[in-house]
Parts: sequence; structure tokens; C-alpha cells
Amino acid sequence: MPKPWEQLDSEWLFEGGFFRIEQARLRSPRNGFEHPFMRFHFGDWCQVIALTPQEEIVLIRQWRPASDALEVEIPGGLIDPGEDPAEAARRELAEETGYTGGEIIRIGTTRPNPALLTNRMHAFLMRDVERTGAQQLDAAEDIEVFTAPYADIPRMLRAGEIQHALVISAFALYQGHIEG
Amino acid sequence: MPKPWEQLDSEWLFEGGFFRIEQARLRSPRNGFEHPFMRFHFGDWCQVIALTPQEEIVLIRQWRPASDALEVEIPGGLIDPGEDPAEAARRELAEETGYTGGEIIRIGTTRPNPALLTNRMHAFLMRDVERTGAQQLDAAEDIEVFTAPYADIPRMLRAGEIQHALVISAFALYQGHIEG
Repeated sequence: MPKPWEQLDSEWLFEGGFFRIEQARLRSPRNGFEHPFMRFHFGDWCQVIALTPQEEIVLIRQWRPASDALEVEIPGGLIDPGEDPAEAARRELAEETGYTGGEIIRIGTTRPNPALLTNRMHAFLMRDVERTGAQQLDAAEDIEVFTAPYADIPRMLRAGEIQHALVISAFALYQGHIEG
Repeated sequence: MPKPWEQLDSEWLFEGGFFRIEQARLRSPRNGFEHPFMRFHFGDWCQVIALTPQEEIVLIRQWRPASDALEVEIPGGLIDPGEDPAEAARRELAEETGYTGGEIIRIGTTRPNPALLTNRMHAFLMRDVERTGAQQLDAAEDIEVFTAPYADIPRMLRAGEIQHALVISAFALYQGHIEG
């Protein structure tokens, strides 16, 4: 089985406000090869599959600057420092959509990109949600809320209507959850 | 429906060799709010679900510097400039595992993170693969190859044995593909 690389040294390359880039010099245990690796340090993220009693999923549509496209996603975002991931998911759902619910269940914790990013993604399921309030958007957000039958998700994936890979990963976790 | 933001200006903040960071000043069409957004420019990536005639999936295990952990993944990597995504997936499979196969089918194209990253992930399915050669690892790689029944994937997700979200997204695309 592969072994961890030995870290020889490390320096901060870039400070971006909400992230930092570290460069570490590492030595391979396989061949002694020394290689620089960059690590992008981000805070942890959360996302939530929110289902109504009719098995409709709460979806959001927003323009994303890096893809320069409207993206269909599930609610989620950055977990505040010290915030419980489940509470963060509940907060993001309420702020972005106005939906609230009862029990929240963790369906998985993943790594958005373990080769590059240091952070984790905590994925949750919330059933029996209902719209109980208004969105609370900050000035830099412009989010449309809609629902769709959860059974439509495979068709939406095939059609490319949902293209955010982290959102798509949550569907696989949900599938694993309900089969478990 | 939300509208694209208007871009007011843009500058390069950081050049990292295999990526570049751009900062753009954008204006919200909802409220006129001006906000800086960073875009991480990466080349496109590919990954492949490779299945043997016995419905075993070809998996790899490697230590990843950002998570500082051994990660179970499917083969994949960076598409070379000008390279066809399907050929890149075929190349990565052969280099990382020694497995080759016949027909390769695109099961989806996603965005690894449309809020931050400009690039795409092209996901493929290759059936009836077999081990026909040796791995061709570069000095900075140390990859163990193994197979597991594809039917075990939901259990592996529940157990947290696979935590790479982009890999997990490919399983959802495959599910959508076989249900289509």
C-alpha cells in the first residue's frame, strides 16, 4: 500500500482572503523523489438535499462567475468558523430558499478535491421541509428557488441540466444512504 | 430567472504553473452591487469508470497531499492541451493501472466547482477492460491498483472508504446513464 510522503518544508505562496495557498516540498517514499505540491486551504463546505413530503427536492438556480453560466444546485455554502456542519446546512437552506424542516441527517463527508483542496464537504438530508419564510440573500447573491420531483434527477443529469460535480456527488451519497 | 453579472474589469492575481487566479469586478443585475470574484483557471480533467467483464471496477489508491490521506479513486487526470477527452481518459487508465479496453462512452461532463474553478470534468465509462500491460508511473506518482465489485460502491460510500467528491460524482452519472 502506498505510504505518506515526507514533508521537507513548506511556505505560504498566496493569501486570498477566503483561502490560502501553501507550497510544500515532499519526498516520495517510493523513490526518494522530491516534488513541490500546492495545497489550497479553504474552510469546510456543506450542502443539503431537502425533500418535501411529496418527494420534491428544493433546488436553486444562480449565475456562477467561474463557469459564467446559470447553475442548478442544491443549497449549501461555507461553514462559519466553529459552526456545527448540520446547523450550517440548516442555515444555508433557510437563507437561500426560505425552507425549513425537522431532523437533519448526515449522508456523507467528502473531500471536494483531496489532491488540491484541504477542506471537507459535509452532505446532509432533510426530509419534510416546507417553505416557512422569505429568502435572506446578501448583496452578492441572486438565487431563484424551485422544486422538482426527486425522481427526475437522473434525467436532469443525463440532460446536463445539473453540472456542479459537488452537487452531483450528493446524489450518489443519498443513493448509498437509502440503499444502506 | 437570475441574469449574468456584468464584468467591469479583470486582472491576473497569481500564476501557479498549472493554474492561474483571475480577479474580476462584477456588477449584480439584481441590485447594481459591485463585487470582486476570483476565478481559478485550470485545464480540463477526465475520469473513467472502468469495468471488467465480471462487473468489477478498477480502483486506485494513492496518498494525496492536500487531504494528507490515502484516497481510493477511479483513474483520471489532466487532459493535455488539444487532447481529446476520451483519449485522455483511455491514456490515464493505461498509465495509472495498465488496464485497456474497447469502446469508451461519455457519461457526463460536469463542473468541478462552477463558483470557483473555470474547468470541466469529462466522465467516461469503459466496459470489458482487462489488464494488458504495466503501469507507467511518473516519479511523483505512487499508485496501487485493485478491483472491487461495482455493487460494493454504495457500501464503500457509506463507510467513507471513498471520499473524493469528484469520483463520487461519477457514480451518480453512471447511475443516471444506466437508468436512461
